[in-house]
Amino acid sequence: MSTKFKFLGFSSFLITTSSGTDILIDPYLNDNPVSPVKASGFEKVDLLLVSHGAFDHLGDSAEIAKHYGCPVICSGDSKLLLLERGVDKAQLIETTWGLTVKAAGIKVRPVESRHRSCVTLQNGCVVTANPLGFIIYTEDDTRVYNASDTALFTDLKLIGELHRPHIGLMNVTIENPFDFLPEFLTGEMTAYEAALASQWLRLDYAVACHYTQKDCEDIQIFINQLENTRSGERPYTKPIAMDAGQTFEYAPGGIAKVY
Amino acid sequence: MSTKFKFLGFSSFLITTSSGTDILIDPYLNDNPVSPVKASGFEKVDLLLVSHGAFDHLGDSAEIAKHYGCPVICSGDSKLLLLERGVDKAQLIETTWGLTVKAAGIKVRPVESRHRSCVTLQNGCVVTANPLGFIIYTEDDTRVYNASDTALFTDLKLIGELHRPHIGLMNVTIENPFDFLPEFLTGEMTAYEAALASQWLRLDYAVACHYTQKDCEDIQIFINQLENTRSGERPYTKPIAMDAGQTFEYAPGGIAKVY
Amino acid sequence: MSTKFKFLGFSSFLITTSSGTDILIDPYLNDNPVSPVKASGFEKVDLLLVSHGAFDHLGDSAEIAKHYGCPVICSGDSKLLLLERGVDKAQLIETTWGLTVKAAGIKVRPVESRHRSCVTLQNGCVVTANPLGFIIYTEDDTRVYNASDTALFTDLKLIGELHRPHIGLMNVTIENPFDFLPEFLTGEMTAYEAALASQWLRLDYAVACHYTQKDCEDIQIFINQLENTRSGERPYTKPIAMDAGQTFEYAPGGIAKVY
Repeated sequence: MSTKFKFLGFSSFLITTSSGTDILIDPYLNDNPVSPVKASGFEKVDLLLVSHGAFDHLGDSAEIAKHYGCPVICSGDSKLLLLERGVDKAQLIETTWGLTVKAAGIKVRPVESRHRSCVTLQNGCVVTANPLGFIIYTEDDTRVYNASDTALFTDLKLIGELHRPHIGLMNVTIENPFDFLPEFLTGEMTAYEAALASQWLRLDYAVACHYTQKDCEDIQIFINQLENTRSGERPYTKPIAMDAGQTFEYAPGGIAKVY
Repeated sequence: MSTKFKFLGFSSFLITTSSGTDILIDPYLNDNPVSPVKASGFEKVDLLLVSHGAFDHLGDSAEIAKHYGCPVICSGDSKLLLLERGVDKAQLIETTWGLTVKAAGIKVRPVESRHRSCVTLQNGCVVTANPLGFIIYTEDDTRVYNASDTALFTDLKLIGELHRPHIGLMNVTIENPFDFLPEFLTGEMTAYEAALASQWLRLDYAVACHYTQKDCEDIQIFINQLENTRSGERPYTKPIAMDAGQTFEYAPGGIAKVY
Repeated sequence: MSTKFKFLGFSSFLITTSSGTDILIDPYLNDNPVSPVKASGFEKVDLLLVSHGAFDHLGDSAEIAKHYGCPVICSGDSKLLLLERGVDKAQLIETTWGLTVKAAGIKVRPVESRHRSCVTLQNGCVVTANPLGFIIYTEDDTRVYNASDTALFTDLKLIGELHRPHIGLMNVTIENPFDFLPEFLTGEMTAYEAALASQWLRLDYAVACHYTQKDCEDIQIFINQLENTRSGERPYTKPIAMDAGQTFEYAPGGIAKVY
């Protein structure tokens, strides 16, 4: 009985639960140079989660939703864009902070993310909504927190207390390969802040994301910061940083491994 | 000298202050199966408060504003929709978090609500704004907090410290009768979270809302959670759950009753 | 070696760093009755910061950006409006909470502001974005916090801990001279809240703003509140209130003066 997290680069993950449910998160794949799989290349997708309306998160969601016919849990702006791109309304589950929904047997509670969610529709309308963090409850009660580009905020402690997530998918740094964006000197969280966030959430495992290459300074700082809090027998948050294509496997109360 | 809170179902309340001022909050009445009064059925409305642009909160505000000619304190998106529906601009008092306004002799301070406020205008533009919690100061200095669909957040403690509200109108659960919405397993706050919120706000009385039928599990949990914190002489937050049409009456320092 | 803050009325400041870099913040000048300088009257502007899309903050930014050709760090809605008003896209650096950018040699980290940012485009679209607080790192590592109409929130303590700003530009009150706005009884923060905010941020100097005349009750309350926390040798936040046209000069670890 285990949950597998396949890292696809940027903030994209394919989670396979112990019951075999495939949950895809923030699929930015077709234009992502390191993703080992493109939008139509999955065996199946049972559930798609879209945290917010950004090109590197909403990404290929329309193509995926149409190809696999899966339910999509998303923010209000993302829903409007996905409708416009031809996704069937019946697949789209719009929610906001707190409003728990269930699809494909998976319970998902959206929590605050301190970021911006924004899409531009064909009529020229710029629509915003609440960006969504997610607490994902798998069938074996493994609880996964998806941070989704949040800035650091103290209520991550509250989220930790209320939901006790085992694993967090944490934005630790930022990619700067885009000529249409400014150069950002830090991500929404610095590596230090992402480590703090992981501890405030009381994570067992903090899986770094929002990068293509793990051999960068921010990832090293994140790992060091979390490793340095280790002291004797005290539980601590263990950092995980993968190359795209690698999988982190987690068994409740048991062994975790990367391969 | 007392303040009366008549529950109209969902999050709609008619507050009558000790001076006889009638304040209507989030009037979702005409399509609300349990409301004992419809939009044009009030004797008078002196002040209308609209917390955010949602069908079950903004509701019948346009009809009411036009029928009674009363001032309306509202968020920026709600103002645009109410203008479009023919409400006189002079009636509309747009505000946001912190900016205290006064109308009909009542001082109102908007505070944060962690939710989404969103309307769609006739030109197809989807407009968002800050959803508003309210601190209402009546003429006898009874202080009322209106939560308005907020998710739980720790700064409710700050709101409690700064404003010391006596009574809170708290979203405890969620209605699921709408075929155009997903089924939500929890409201923005669970019943447990709404009880926590009430305590963090240091309320004397927490009046449950966002339901039509009080005989549901969430309301029972909310009541039990607050009752169980009672111990000897220690002040505590007393839960109130009413049927639509019932009234909670509160006298400063004195007797409170439901009838 | 010193940093100079010239107050221009409302929330407009011209900051001149110890290296001579001129940073203009939230320039509401041409319609501002007390500003000693209008949009085209500066010797030079090296960097323009726009915290949010409001008439009294975005103000004359388009004219200034075009006249001086300087980079503009701004929120997403402000960027769209400035583009529409003819500012060159290459000058506009859109960012959001956490995403640090650098321009004109100055590092700027946007932080949360609990307010609303909103513009209306020519196509009738009403666009919102995250309003931006700023931490400005000057070349001599003087750290300046710009509050920008925020309501009070506890994570100001977190901002204080993470960034240790020396000087804060704090919205303490509100102007009520506009016939198109309601009369606000308080600003987004009351004077008491602005003093609390300054202490939570651990500021050395709290420079009051969002007013035209300093001889008002709110400014006096703000000053008294901060002065009254002085006790013996304990460091405390010193309040500064200037008339438009005056300059506050700050030298790291040394003398600060107003003239």
